[in-house]
Amino acid sequence: MENTVKRNVLRIVGNNAKEMEDTIVTEYAVTVKVNQEEFVTMVCTPEYVEDMVIGYLASERVIRDFDDIEQIWHQEKDGFVHVKTKRVNPYFQQMQNKRYITSCCGASRQGFVFANDALVAKKMEEVHVRVTPEECHRLMHNMQNDATIFQETGGVHNAALCDASGIVLSRMDIGRHNALDKIYGYCLRNQISMQDKIIVFSGRISSEILLKVSKIGCEIVLSKSAPTALALELADHLGITTVGFIRKEGMNVYTHQERIQLQDEC
Amino acid sequence: MENTVKRNVLRIVGNNAKEMEDTIVTEYAVTVKVNQEEFVTMVCTPEYVEDMVIGYLASERVIRDFDDIEQIWHQEKDGFVHVKTKRVNPYFQQMQNKRYITSCCGASRQGFVFANDALVAKKMEEVHVRVTPEECHRLMHNMQNDATIFQETGGVHNAALCDASGIVLSRMDIGRHNALDKIYGYCLRNQISMQDKIIVFSGRISSEILLKVSKIGCEIVLSKSAPTALALELADHLGITTVGFIRKEGMNVYTHQERIQLQDEC
Repeated sequence: MENTVKRNVLRIVGNNAKEMEDTIVTEYAVTVKVNQEEFVTMVCTPEYVEDMVIGYLASERVIRDFDDIEQIWHQEKDGFVHVKTKRVNPYFQQMQNKRYITSCCGASRQGFVFANDALVAKKMEEVHVRVTPEECHRLMHNMQNDATIFQETGGVHNAALCDASGIVLSRMDIGRHNALDKIYGYCLRNQISMQDKIIVFSGRISSEILLKVSKIGCEIVLSKSAPTALALELADHLGITTVGFIRKEGMNVYTHQERIQLQDEC
Repeated sequence: MENTVKRNVLRIVGNNAKEMEDTIVTEYAVTVKVNQEEFVTMVCTPEYVEDMVIGYLASERVIRDFDDIEQIWHQEKDGFVHVKTKRVNPYFQQMQNKRYITSCCGASRQGFVFANDALVAKKMEEVHVRVTPEECHRLMHNMQNDATIFQETGGVHNAALCDASGIVLSRMDIGRHNALDKIYGYCLRNQISMQDKIIVFSGRISSEILLKVSKIGCEIVLSKSAPTALALELADHLGITTVGFIRKEGMNVYTHQERIQLQDEC
């Protein structure tokens, strides 16, 4: 299946209308079956679907790592991914999307919403990687330059895994979190070390996105858009550096500025 | 709870950094309990939460209309909405997020992904409302003018219910679909007729958004952004007029152009 399709649209400028061909982004539904049981249906851009499923299953704590998967195959036409596992977290069905309730009060104090997130999220206690503002601008610029489908359709989000030298891996998807699951799945499959890596993201940093970054194991997330207050609360707690609104005129560092290297420190 | 919070950020322009106060959008987690059972946890902007829950429950076919609800109360501090119903769809738990599999083949031919959507979506067979390109531009402009939280934070989506005379109801949320659920819930609660209404939306038209428009019962959706191919397939089938990329330089009509009134037809 292609990532885009061609379709006739009526283009109206002022009061003039004419038929023309347009490029539209595909939205592909895929149902994940884990050991023959329906687990979740995801709607996504139809590339790197297996990686996305691996990333999602690890992120939801169904599997611990790629080795837990015995077999994975994508039945593309009918929209299924079948996963056969050596072992699974025995409580994964019951825990899915369950609210995280702490013993002392209703809402979690660290900002966790879902029970699984509190178990899977990694806390970044050290500083393994630092970036300068110039590098933030350069990485954002490079990711956007690579984003050809976005330029054609305006309909997808882009995410990139980077290190100091540039982009390691770039993924796009109509679903914000899917782009990160595709990166996560690829890295689990290929045992890529995360310690010196940075996530660059085109969309807003919601709590869900911040948690993905933490589960992937990166210390820094860069975005051209806004964060939410809950994402920043989680970032404070999990030790992640968040930088938003990376645009020509500047950028905002919201949390853990110890990983941002200003010139006078060089 | 407020829709935004103030927070100190490090603003970097060039290589100059200074602390300043910024406005950040709140992300509020709320767990919906239906007749004391945990049904879903939603992450949203903390205004009009009860309306959102009513809209969501109707959209997921847990309830048929507002009369099915005996009592609804929002326990704001702990993040719960408790719903007591007179009656519910008896299969709602089993049907939630289940893939729609037709008898003849794996994937649905009309574009439906989830079983409940195929049951709840309304088909628009007639033309009750028409708009001119000028009205499309005016409604989009008015919605954006109203969107003060977006202007402050860049972190929310906006949706408006309109008729030919202008905006009837305007809602914003960090979640794209929540803004539409808030509109849907309000309309169910207040028995507002949908037949002559239009949805104006700031974000992309994904299949999920298109289905919300259909469930709410509107014939036209206007967006300043892109649609997906699956959304257009559903719009073709459900009889909904979709207009995207409504920007200064023009707009694209993707489906059911019979509701777009060009000047030479006046």
